[in-house]
This record gives sequence, structure tokens and C-alpha cells, in this order.
Amino acid sequence: MAMADMPLRSWVAGANDPACDFPIQNLPFGVFSTADRGPRCGVAIGQMIVDLAACEAQGMLDAAGTFDRPRLNDFIALGRPVWDRIREQLTALLAEGADQTVPLVAMSDATLHLPIRVTEFTDFYASKNHAFNVGVLFRGPENALPPQWTHMPIGYNGRASSVVVSGTDIHRPMGQVKGEDGPVWSPCKRLDLELELGAIVGADSQMGSRISVDQAEQMIFGYVLLNDWSARDIQAWEYQPLGPFQAKALGTTISPWIVTQAALEPFRCDGAERVNPLLPYLQESRPGFYDMTVGWTMNGQRMSQTNYNVMYYSSAQQLAHHAVSGCPMRVGDLLGSGTISGPERDQTGALLEMTEGGKSPVTVNGEDRTFIQDGDEIGLFAHAQGDGYRVGFGPCTGKILPAVE
Amino acid sequence: MAMADMPLRSWVAGANDPACDFPIQNLPFGVFSTADRGPRCGVAIGQMIVDLAACEAQGMLDAAGTFDRPRLNDFIALGRPVWDRIREQLTALLAEGADQTVPLVAMSDATLHLPIRVTEFTDFYASKNHAFNVGVLFRGPENALPPQWTHMPIGYNGRASSVVVSGTDIHRPMGQVKGEDGPVWSPCKRLDLELELGAIVGADSQMGSRISVDQAEQMIFGYVLLNDWSARDIQAWEYQPLGPFQAKALGTTISPWIVTQAALEPFRCDGAERVNPLLPYLQESRPGFYDMTVGWTMNGQRMSQTNYNVMYYSSAQQLAHHAVSGCPMRVGDLLGSGTISGPERDQTGALLEMTEGGKSPVTVNGEDRTFIQDGDEIGLFAHAQGDGYRVGFGPCTGKILPAVE
Repeated sequence: MAMADMPLRSWVAGANDPACDFPIQNLPFGVFSTADRGPRCGVAIGQMIVDLAACEAQGMLDAAGTFDRPRLNDFIALGRPVWDRIREQLTALLAEGADQTVPLVAMSDATLHLPIRVTEFTDFYASKNHAFNVGVLFRGPENALPPQWTHMPIGYNGRASSVVVSGTDIHRPMGQVKGEDGPVWSPCKRLDLELELGAIVGADSQMGSRISVDQAEQMIFGYVLLNDWSARDIQAWEYQPLGPFQAKALGTTISPWIVTQAALEPFRCDGAERVNPLLPYLQESRPGFYDMTVGWTMNGQRMSQTNYNVMYYSSAQQLAHHAVSGCPMRVGDLLGSGTISGPERDQTGALLEMTEGGKSPVTVNGEDRTFIQDGDEIGLFAHAQGDGYRVGFGPCTGKILPAVE
Repeated sequence: MAMADMPLRSWVAGANDPACDFPIQNLPFGVFSTADRGPRCGVAIGQMIVDLAACEAQGMLDAAGTFDRPRLNDFIALGRPVWDRIREQLTALLAEGADQTVPLVAMSDATLHLPIRVTEFTDFYASKNHAFNVGVLFRGPENALPPQWTHMPIGYNGRASSVVVSGTDIHRPMGQVKGEDGPVWSPCKRLDLELELGAIVGADSQMGSRISVDQAEQMIFGYVLLNDWSARDIQAWEYQPLGPFQAKALGTTISPWIVTQAALEPFRCDGAERVNPLLPYLQESRPGFYDMTVGWTMNGQRMSQTNYNVMYYSSAQQLAHHAVSGCPMRVGDLLGSGTISGPERDQTGALLEMTEGGKSPVTVNGEDRTFIQDGDEIGLFAHAQGDGYRVGFGPCTGKILPAVE
């Protein structure tokens, strides 16, 4: 490799390992605490965290005091020129050859927290493979793909209060499921994951105003991994006609590190091929997806792997659609991409699809699974592969605890 | 009327008028500002507002400094013992015979604001008449009432950011509607209201915990009127399978005064007769509804009037169901009751029902209407009739402005 092609390197330990999710090209934002000090903002690099609050206290960075807060919302609200300036400054401070004065904390000494106060949470349905596969299971093949699916990003408002950070245990929910003679009170027996990305809105919009796809793109701060835990039996009984409700409210797990849009920029690519032209308000002037490996594990075993570029609607299109009726969007809104599923069984982002509604078990470490059992741990992963480095998300895990009956 | 039966009276002007919504028996909470001072908390009585921030500054009341804030959330979070104590103290301070020292502001000199920061907004579907009528129009009579309807309060998460206070103009939304050959970009042509009550959650619950109906009842601070503006043509095209989304995000109007649960207590009554027994987690130990007239006007003409006691699920049952999967509930969550419709045409809480999906126009001040036209103003009203007084909600109005194309 010629010197000109060498990726930018950092003086921070571990950051130049090609398998590390957090090279100097990434610089994802999060919130961490240490034994001696409460939650504040940080940036991951190698095996370390840049203590942004300490950087600001020492005059290395200026973010109007927002780094010494327990959520990133106030920093994000400062706007894109500040995001860009901080990224540029951090890149200079952390590059090989710079003075090694940046205050760092070892990741192993830190506890990671929910990075944002989730203002509102919306979940979409933007993988055509997933929409078709799940549609077959809920409604049969002839009604599988709803008629508006190829014309708009279908979404629903989720519950923000149940969004938790990676590593938080989730109780199997109790609820109503369909019995032979009316509903039955039961622990969920068809507990599932959904492999998604979550886009974090970084700017407000005004009530009564629409947002173009290009404007929407400028409003997105970054992305997290997102597991939208789903109680399929509760969902099947409750979801008509107003959509999923308690089936999706048991918990939604997101990764602690927000990978910025700037870090993903080199991986921009087209998504799935369009079946029909979109209405002008949903058209984008450039590709809105990222060439990025995504997948999930159960109890450490890799179950599925696909690419984010299988998706049909980008986060920017989803955000534009979200405001089409004049709905105001706010800093900290979280938009789930929808389950990311490729066409093959080992590319599906949910057990419902992988096991064909529980009919075809899969093997996990020698044991059969249709849905999630108590004690099972689900992990999501994603990274975009650069030349000699990768921009990754780090882990996004959650373990299922028994139901509280 | 014997002295013993006389209702409690106040020294405040207008409070003893039997047609006044705000007698001493009511004491609803809100947020107001005046020319000389910004938003702070108040209580309505007669034609006046008790300046609670000034009361606290003068040492008459103690709410830990929460009254001098632009939303009621912090006061509400202090909990039920504080709500009860403040109500008792205000009743003593405002009763006929008390020293007339309470700082008052004329309602005509005040601007009213959104009383709470809406944490999250959930809307239910709890009038059987409404569910059946709308079900017939969307899905035909054989699939009108979903099979789970009599077993659970069906609800969906709405959008909190578009909740506005009475008097806020709303733009007719643009959006996708179904055309003969795919979707068409259009202003909404079937714009509707929904007459609802909104319950305001006054206490947090823990993730992974359920709430009994009796506990839920203790968690409700009070009620507002709520108009869930609905774009029926956008809704029909978008709502399957994940529920209404942009059709309900153009705006939701609530009344500025929160009528407390304590003020409604004398009017507690049964709701609609149960078709089947509920699962234990939804059973209540006492009646959960209020004998309360509710209705709506268009351009000043009364269109419909019914009673809140036609409802099938109470707000406490809705709150218990909302947490059944372990979803944490938070102070400031707003739960829409669902459209309140009686069985007759002049008792319906939405134009969709009243006009049978636009087929049977109604006459408003000599003009035909099927759905809402630009410039139309919708008003909601509600009051519970006591002996010689009434506990009312005051106005909840909104005017529709033309679409921004």
C-alpha cells in the first residue's frame, strides 16, 4: 500500500487495529461515567474514551458547556456546523503525530449510558424482504405487501420511555394472547428481536412545515443499532386496526455509541431498486443508504448477516415522510429503520422470518430455537468496511429475564 | 334549598354563577402569562385566575417552587398528597368568608398556554358506538368491531410534539391519498375532529412493572378536553398494517385547564355495560367513569352532545393496559380516551360517523358540511352538573387554515 493510500492513523492504543470498531475515522459520541465522576459526554477511540467534558474544561474544545451533561441532546441541538467543527478538531487532536494531551478514560473503567434523552420514538418498516415475509405470516401471501408499501415509508409511533441502552436486561412480558375461546393471560411465548438501525434527529422542525429529503438528511446527527424487541403472540392479537402497542413496549435496546453521519459518508450507496417512482416529496437527489454489514447473534453465535443497502427507504426519506402532514420533529427523536432483512434465511433480522413463524427451528449452540427463551442474549453488530479500517457500532446486547407473573 | 344543601360558595366574582365552568368546586390547573410577566401556574375560578406563583412567593402555598414554571409537570410530580393539600388550602382561601388576599389575575388579561410538557401521547378507541361506526366505514359491518375490542382497550402511540393548546390554528395537511391509479399528492379532503377527554398521568411507573387499575387511578392527575384532528383520506391509505400515522400528526388540541380527578369525584359512575368479563388485570374495584356532558360545536353551532359514561374503558383501565408489558409510564403522559360517541347521530364525536363517511351532509348555520372546510372552527365542551354548580372544562377550540401546497 502506497503512503498516499494509507488510512489516517491515531496515537491512541488499539485505534489502528483493522478489526477495531472505533478508529480515528469513526469518532462516535456517547455518554459514560466512571467510579469518580457521573455521566458526561465522550467519544470512543480504540479501547479508550475521550472525556469531552474534561476537554472542554481544559479549553481544547468548545461546545458551550454541553459536554458536561448526562445526555447528548444539548450538544446535538447546537447544530451541524458545531458537529463538523468538533469532529475536525478531534481528528487533529487524535491523529498520529499530535501532542498526546487529550484526556482519555479506558473503556474498561467506564459505564456506558443511554446517549440521548429519547424525545419520541418512531419505528418504520422499510425492508421489502421483511415486510413481505412478515406479511405472509400475519396475513397470507396475497395480502403480504400492503398496497401503499412501495409508495411511502410505513411507520408507527413507538414508546420512547422503554428505550434502554445495550446491556439492560429485559423481562419477558405478560399480556393477552389469543386462546381458543377468547384471550388468555400468559407470558409471551413468541418473543422476538428486530435488527434495526436508529437514526437520531439533530434539529427541530416547525409545526405546519414540511421537510424535503435533502433537508431531512441535513437534520440527521447519526445512527445507533436498535433492537425492537417484539412479542409476536401479543402483537397478533392486539395489532388490528391501530397497529402494534404493548407487543413493542417491553423494551427497545440501542447501542451506546452514536456513529455520526459524517463517519458513514464514505460508504454512501444506493438501496433496493425502486418498483415504482416515488411522489416528489420522497425523492432524493443522491443515494441515501450506506454499504454496511449488519447482523445479529444469539448467545454468541452468529445467526444472520446482511447489508443495510437492502433497505427500500432511507432515514432521510422516513424523516421527510414523518413531517409531511406538518408534524414537528425535535432533537432527540429516534427513527427505527425497520427490520433489516436480506432475501435469504441467514440474512433475516427477526426470528419470526428465520423460523417461518416458529415452524422451522434454528440451531443455536446445539439447541433448537424458534423464539427467544429466558436467559438468551441477543447481540446486534454493524460496520462499514474501509480500506484498512472499519467504522463500527460496537456491541448492542440484551438478555431476556423470566416474566414476572 | 336548606342551608345544609347549599353548595360551597366563593368570594371571587363570577364563581357562584351556576353556568360558570369554574366554581370553587372545580379549581382546575393551568399555565398563563400576562403582559408584565411570563408563563407560570394558575388555577381558574369564576372569571379570574389564582396566580399560584405569587401565592407561593407570598407564603400562602408551598409547592417547592414548582408554581413559578412554564409547565405543570414539576408540580404534578410532587405527588397526590401535595395535590390534595393544595386543593384543600385553595378551597379554604377562596371560600366565602375568607380574607380576600389571594392574588388574582383577570382571565381577560391573561394568555393561556399548554399546561404540561406532553411527555408521550397515547390515543385509545374506547367508545363502542364509535368503534363500530368507524369500523363499518373502514372495513364493512362484518369486520366492524375487532375481535379483541371487548377484551382490551385498543390504543396506539400518537405524536406528543403536535399537541397544542386551545386557540392554536391548524393547517390542513398535505399528504398521500389513494387515487385510481396509485397514490395522489393532495390536500386532505376528509378532515375531521375527534371529541375526546385526555387523562394526564401524574406519577412514574418502573420499567418491567405492571400497574393495577386501582393503582392507575391513583396515578391520574386530571383531565383535559382533547380534539384529535384526523385526516380520514390520508388515514384510509396509510393505516394498514401499523395503524394511523400522519393522519393524526397534523395536530391534537387540548384545553388549557386540567380538571382534577378530585373535582370530578362526586360524579363518578358506571360506564357502558360489559359484553364479557375482563381479564383480572383490567378489572376495577369501583366505577371508573364520570357522569359528564360532552359535546362539540362547529362555527358556534352545537353539533353533538352525549355523556362520557357511554365509554367502555376508563382512563385507569387504559393506563393499566398501557403498562401491562412492562412499559414505564411517566409524569406528563397524555392518554386520549378515544372518540366519545353515543348511539344517535347527534351524539357522535366525529364527522366521519355523523355524515356516514361523507354520504349524509349535516347543516351548519345554513351551509352543508360533510367534513371540515378551511376557516371552520371546532369547539369541544364538557361539564359535570352538580346541585347549583357545574364542574366544566372551559373552551377547547381550533380553526383550520388552508393547506400549504
